[in-house]
Amino acid sequence: MSSNSMRNPNKRVAILSPIAWRTPPRQYGAWETVASNVTEGLVARGWDVTLFASGDSVTRAHLVAALDRGYEEDPTIDSKVAEYLHISGAFELAAEFDLIHSHYDFMPLSYTRLIKTPVLTTIHGFSSPKIMPIYQKYRNGYFVSVSNSDRATGLNYLATVYNGIDLSLYPLQERGGNDLIFLARIHPDKGVHLAIEVARLSGMHLIIAGIIQDQAYFREQVQPHLDDQNIVYIGPVDVAGKNALFARARALLHLNTIPERFGLVLVEANAAGVPVIAMDLGSCREVIEDGQTGFLVANVNEAVQAIGRISEIDRPACRSRVQQRFSIETMVQGYERVYSTIFDLEAQKRS
Amino acid sequence: MSSNSMRNPNKRVAILSPIAWRTPPRQYGAWETVASNVTEGLVARGWDVTLFASGDSVTRAHLVAALDRGYEEDPTIDSKVAEYLHISGAFELAAEFDLIHSHYDFMPLSYTRLIKTPVLTTIHGFSSPKIMPIYQKYRNGYFVSVSNSDRATGLNYLATVYNGIDLSLYPLQERGGNDLIFLARIHPDKGVHLAIEVARLSGMHLIIAGIIQDQAYFREQVQPHLDDQNIVYIGPVDVAGKNALFARARALLHLNTIPERFGLVLVEANAAGVPVIAMDLGSCREVIEDGQTGFLVANVNEAVQAIGRISEIDRPACRSRVQQRFSIETMVQGYERVYSTIFDLEAQKRS
Repeated sequence: MSSNSMRNPNKRVAILSPIAWRTPPRQYGAWETVASNVTEGLVARGWDVTLFASGDSVTRAHLVAALDRGYEEDPTIDSKVAEYLHISGAFELAAEFDLIHSHYDFMPLSYTRLIKTPVLTTIHGFSSPKIMPIYQKYRNGYFVSVSNSDRATGLNYLATVYNGIDLSLYPLQERGGNDLIFLARIHPDKGVHLAIEVARLSGMHLIIAGIIQDQAYFREQVQPHLDDQNIVYIGPVDVAGKNALFARARALLHLNTIPERFGLVLVEANAAGVPVIAMDLGSCREVIEDGQTGFLVANVNEAVQAIGRISEIDRPACRSRVQQRFSIETMVQGYERVYSTIFDLEAQKRS
Repeated sequence: MSSNSMRNPNKRVAILSPIAWRTPPRQYGAWETVASNVTEGLVARGWDVTLFASGDSVTRAHLVAALDRGYEEDPTIDSKVAEYLHISGAFELAAEFDLIHSHYDFMPLSYTRLIKTPVLTTIHGFSSPKIMPIYQKYRNGYFVSVSNSDRATGLNYLATVYNGIDLSLYPLQERGGNDLIFLARIHPDKGVHLAIEVARLSGMHLIIAGIIQDQAYFREQVQPHLDDQNIVYIGPVDVAGKNALFARARALLHLNTIPERFGLVLVEANAAGVPVIAMDLGSCREVIEDGQTGFLVANVNEAVQAIGRISEIDRPACRSRVQQRFSIETMVQGYERVYSTIFDLEAQKRS
């Protein structure tokens, strides 16, 4: 069966995005980015898609919005109220859909037994062990993991579907530059302090971009090293800002201190031809091919050594691998296979 | 029609309590207290009642618990996960009930359109103007206010049902004592600082009890006045602790700075025969009869003057008024009338 035969324009799919930021987000918002890419990818392949997201979202699908803006972008909105309004808005229209595909964490699971429409949940990450009881309650639902490494025991996973990006947003930077770049939330999990150490040890410039999620960490472990020259922090960046960074990058440093769930920025960097030096934790070894699209390392010293080998990496080959494995098309075809499985299972239940 | 004829043992009612504390709470937890009183009062009058609450709750009804303990009493529990598990647990069993009666804020509203069972929401308070959008969405649901003053525009209120207490918990203290007492959350809304001012101006002792909800307020406006003699803070108290306070009380000071929603402690104090000096804001004039069960005041000076008139208050008469208006029996009869209205309206819908 070719992947094309799985498309089913007669089926109506609802995509439930988070309501924190616009879909796609203006800057930060990885889950909204993926929800957007799934939505637009499905539309491009002929599906009838309804996106549940903030009213200022940008999409070619039908847009249904319980709120005009994401709660992170409008201080008059209470995040809890937004969440309940947004999720209930989708589930109250459940009968209009053959499938609800949720990208919004564990909360929507609590509505799934009150409707007949099947619900697929892409788990973009487990924020804490404390959220596991609700996944355990609904473990017989339909789940997709975004990497093989980020799976919980006992859940009914139908597949791993890697996140896909829009490669046209990140053109190949044929030559790159001489700087190291860091591009993630400023948080100990993302190892900004390790990136700074690697930059100092290798005598290279480091440009740090991303929202500050942990203010104390920024103040204590990042800010003291900023000198407006060798180690620079430029705040959060949008797509254009990312491309500007990729253009001057010799390598992206992603020395995460806890297992990465997926690591969208690794893929974006690779798409632009930027090699990635990543800690070998969690999904990084699924996203980066060691020695081909970057290097997997175990510590700061290995990262410094890897910088010396960056010239071994073929930049167009980085992009090719993203095209093959982490494009919107590849992701959407992955989801089409999952949807098809669900439609078959549901048909069996009814018969 | 007598109130007795409204009882309907063939109807099955679910009471949805909050999941912050045990039902009834060990100490603080006004909403859990009322949910418990409604539950036990209905059981006493022959109703088939299922209480959705923490597993350590104490009830004569059927108890269904999604969690062993309230999230405020178990640090291993995530409050958000608890909330979603608890509410969905009740709604997933909706078909087993003729009515779900929610005491848990706005969140359960978001599930109401996914089930056929009618849902009655007692609004124990609007915590912020930001929560109004979700009440507006579900404004055509069934609502009860706990005082005439605490109503929002446009909601489908079926009645005001005053909260009722178990009078047997608060025996009449025939004589009382010479102290002023304050019994509420330590929060600017509750006017602890005003109570302290009144105590100083009147040269009387003040005993302050309650959880500290606003640490900065406690540190800046309460703690500096504590002297272990004239102004004393004793922390939160349970029922026995309240009775010990009532036994030594000349009056309860309740100088709230924002409209009171109901004011359960005013009723508890009156039940014990303790006169209440309350700010004339919100529901206080519905709960306290000026000159009969206490005094309604507009400011600190009026409160000081009212202390001079406390001997005018007949303590047994305070209790009698509570027995009449704010007992569990009176409250439950009020809810029976509301339930009866809902059953009639639902029967009309079906016919």
